[in-house]
Amino acid sequence: MNTPAITPPKTADTQHPILDCLAQRWSPRAFAERPVEPDKLRQLFEAARWAASAFNEQPWRFVVATKDQPEPFARVLGCLVEANQSWAKHAPVLMINCVSEVFARNGKANRCTEHDLGLAMGNLSAQATALGLVVHQMAGIDQEKAKADLGIPSGFHAFSAVAIGYQGEASKLEEDWQRDAEAAERSRNAFDAFVFGGAFDQPTDLFRD
Amino acid sequence: MNTPAITPPKTADTQHPILDCLAQRWSPRAFAERPVEPDKLRQLFEAARWAASAFNEQPWRFVVATKDQPEPFARVLGCLVEANQSWAKHAPVLMINCVSEVFARNGKANRCTEHDLGLAMGNLSAQATALGLVVHQMAGIDQEKAKADLGIPSGFHAFSAVAIGYQGEASKLEEDWQRDAEAAERSRNAFDAFVFGGAFDQPTDLFRD
Repeated sequence: MNTPAITPPKTADTQHPILDCLAQRWSPRAFAERPVEPDKLRQLFEAARWAASAFNEQPWRFVVATKDQPEPFARVLGCLVEANQSWAKHAPVLMINCVSEVFARNGKANRCTEHDLGLAMGNLSAQATALGLVVHQMAGIDQEKAKADLGIPSGFHAFSAVAIGYQGEASKLEEDWQRDAEAAERSRNAFDAFVFGGAFDQPTDLFRD
Repeated sequence: MNTPAITPPKTADTQHPILDCLAQRWSPRAFAERPVEPDKLRQLFEAARWAASAFNEQPWRFVVATKDQPEPFARVLGCLVEANQSWAKHAPVLMINCVSEVFARNGKANRCTEHDLGLAMGNLSAQATALGLVVHQMAGIDQEKAKADLGIPSGFHAFSAVAIGYQGEASKLEEDWQRDAEAAERSRNAFDAFVFGGAFDQPTDLFRD
């Protein structure tokens, strides 16, 4: 096997130029032992903090655990599905993303809460990439277990998990599918599959010139 | 009145440094007449395209209308609630963000679809800010009207609207509340309100040193 120690950069193959902090972002599973500097973590949460949200509700809540604190780390890790635990256990930072289900100001349902968590995570991911960190978000969590084990109160729920750290050696991943994913080419839909002109499924002339 | 022509930069007052494309982003309502160059719009959608999504589903769909095309522009504008129409009608680009409700690969419900739209919009907003554009996202749309008027098929729904353009003069906004919002200071929750250590509502020592 000729697996390189660290997967080479998987910078997006773009047709139009975009920011490095967006093009260089991807979701590896191999993490280095190296811990994340607290100052960098603070920058990540500062980035998330300034995302937009409906009525500036800021519905996101982050339950963070670092590997140097074994008990909280194990608790957060235990909220992931097993397939994710198998690689995420090596990440130096894990978190469970939670959201408020109602607006603090009037108690009414906030239909934007998960979307707005996405905006915050978009910010966090861009900032992480700029700092040389990698971020892998996971939908694969046990939401009920997280609710119980993390003491998530009524009116909030766990939505996703995140592994944060420095990229590691793909060859150290335990499963074939994990090593394969690490080396796979990145792909995205063509523009005409998701950018429409004036009505759904109608072509736009924006990408034709 | 001494309203400045253009609202001065409302760069986030951060405690920890973050990228300019995140700190300088905010959501104005005053748009300049100036159209957005097609090449910049292409960069916005390229940025959105490379966001992460659950199983790389890329559930986002954007229905775009530019002001130089009056009929589609009016159709998209008509999907906004009236309070938003009153200012968004001056933006050079409007869009309705839609999402797929199920995974293309197996038809099962995708619980991440709105969250992942948020990730794409996080990317788009960062790219727009870097290009000198402003983006204002709106939850205030008529989802049923959008479904009917834009021909959104079964399995998809309209989630939000977006105005994109160059910042304009606040004094030209028609309503007092709009001019007030344009001048208001930006604010965000303190870190201890949304970053927890190992369990919900538990303090983290990350911001104490």
